[in-house]
Amino acid sequence: MEINVEKRIKNSFARQTVMTTIGASITRVKPGEVSVEVPFRSDLTQQHGFFHAGVVTMIVDTACGYAALTCMPVVAAVLTVEYKVNFLSPASGEKLIARGRVLKPGRTLTVCFGEVHALQEGKEKLVATMLATMMKCEDTGLTD
Amino acid sequence: MEINVEKRIKNSFARQTVMTTIGASITRVKPGEVSVEVPFRSDLTQQHGFFHAGVVTMIVDTACGYAALTCMPVVAAVLTVEYKVNFLSPASGEKLIARGRVLKPGRTLTVCFGEVHALQEGKEKLVATMLATMMKCEDTGLTD
Amino acid sequence: MEINVEKRIKNSFARQTVMTTIGASITRVKPGEVSVEVPFRSDLTQQHGFFHAGVVTMIVDTACGYAALTCMPVVAAVLTVEYKVNFLSPASGEKLIARGRVLKPGRTLTVCFGEVHALQEGKEKLVATMLATMMKCEDTGLTD
Amino acid sequence: MEINVEKRIKNSFARQTVMTTIGASITRVKPGEVSVEVPFRSDLTQQHGFFHAGVVTMIVDTACGYAALTCMPVVAAVLTVEYKVNFLSPASGEKLIARGRVLKPGRTLTVCFGEVHALQEGKEKLVATMLATMMKCEDTGLTD
Repeated sequence: MEINVEKRIKNSFARQTVMTTIGASITRVKPGEVSVEVPFRSDLTQQHGFFHAGVVTMIVDTACGYAALTCMPVVAAVLTVEYKVNFLSPASGEKLIARGRVLKPGRTLTVCFGEVHALQEGKEKLVATMLATMMKCEDTGLTD
Repeated sequence: MEINVEKRIKNSFARQTVMTTIGASITRVKPGEVSVEVPFRSDLTQQHGFFHAGVVTMIVDTACGYAALTCMPVVAAVLTVEYKVNFLSPASGEKLIARGRVLKPGRTLTVCFGEVHALQEGKEKLVATMLATMMKCEDTGLTD
Repeated sequence: MEINVEKRIKNSFARQTVMTTIGASITRVKPGEVSVEVPFRSDLTQQHGFFHAGVVTMIVDTACGYAALTCMPVVAAVLTVEYKVNFLSPASGEKLIARGRVLKPGRTLTVCFGEVHALQEGKEKLVATMLATMMKCEDTGLTD
Repeated sequence: MEINVEKRIKNSFARQTVMTTIGASITRVKPGEVSVEVPFRSDLTQQHGFFHAGVVTMIVDTACGYAALTCMPVVAAVLTVEYKVNFLSPASGEKLIARGRVLKPGRTLTVCFGEVHALQEGKEKLVATMLATMMKCEDTGLTD
């Protein structure tokens, strides 16, 4: 991982305004692995009071996207091509922790695996799992 | 569609607090079809200024879930088992319109297809497509 | 659609040896749409006597891949990046008919939607639906 | 894992006629984990001479389905609800080894993760990864 990747990713994350809107933060940047967390807030729920599936998806998508970016050259931007998420348990708890990991880096496409755990009374419970395809974009004029 | 399904779904939607947080509203409820819209706001974006993929996913998940609920008995609640989303174009524009439609209702599982269009200078552009599995839950003590 | 696309696709299909192994044939090639069919055989089943999900997937993957190829230049080859399939009903009947359709063509990636119907006593029943990402490969030295 | 689960799964596998057709065998049955292998044959390929994606999918679907079955009661049958597969590298080599593993068992639905490796000159290479939803069916009158 090039030395300023972490800084570059954190700057990019800061421009993802929706992350601020939901109160998410990036908590770990390693080569091929990124974590994003969001504390529980009552304005992030679905009708039964759990985190909405869309919030779960949002943070693990972001974690996977930046995990992919750690494997790309500095000039690259990353776009989400597609993802699939399985919801394994109700997303209830004090906070959600999404971890994205690169399964297979590629010249154009990078495949990532993500997991979301809910922190429930200090214990982590797996609530969702993602399989995602990310794409390197060099022609966007953007560098993140 | 039982006569009060629309009312029941709108009440349930009103309790999805994250929908208020992002400014989404439910704009259509028909048997097997539900639409959810969200106007552009600068606090809902990813790093390039487009709607975040998670916002796109959130509204089409909700549209698909309620589309499934229109085919279920009154006592049922609906949970998202899993979904897959392909992102076809940048989600830029004045607003997003998500339409969820039931492909196959079932006793336990209902499969839905969703599309998200962005309204760009008055014209709709397809930006994402979803294939989702919804589950009827009778044992939750909840009725939506 | 360039004039020899149909011939090119049929030649390519003929080299997909597994299609011969399962007895599948390509029955329709139109711009953005391809159909593949396979008659029932007792050696293509899972443990309950229905077509195996893998056979269902195989023909709709091939139909989607060639549908994508109809939108690509002559020099291109197509590879399956990923797909998701929902199985809606048991795949029983006299034959399966898979139809692949391009949802969104792209320079590098093409997104396709596929459906598989089973012919049951002369009537078609929807048994599976696919959402797939196909990739154009120009550097393979292959032209299909 | 109940003592005869392995025997029950192998009997069920033997009735999956398509597994015989493609020359696949079940090589490992452990609680929550099942492996299926298929040696290379020239009649199982796509147009570039690699294993067809459908063959890759077929064996990992079967591995995941039986992995789910190891977590179910004796009276249960298992059906594939849906799956998503990412193809990471060309599926070339002497044989394919699919490993299915239960991520989350459930009363009705079980979520599995599968990987397919190709054996290439004695070394394993990851060629595909699956995320799948399996369903327990007690009302089929079938016991596998």
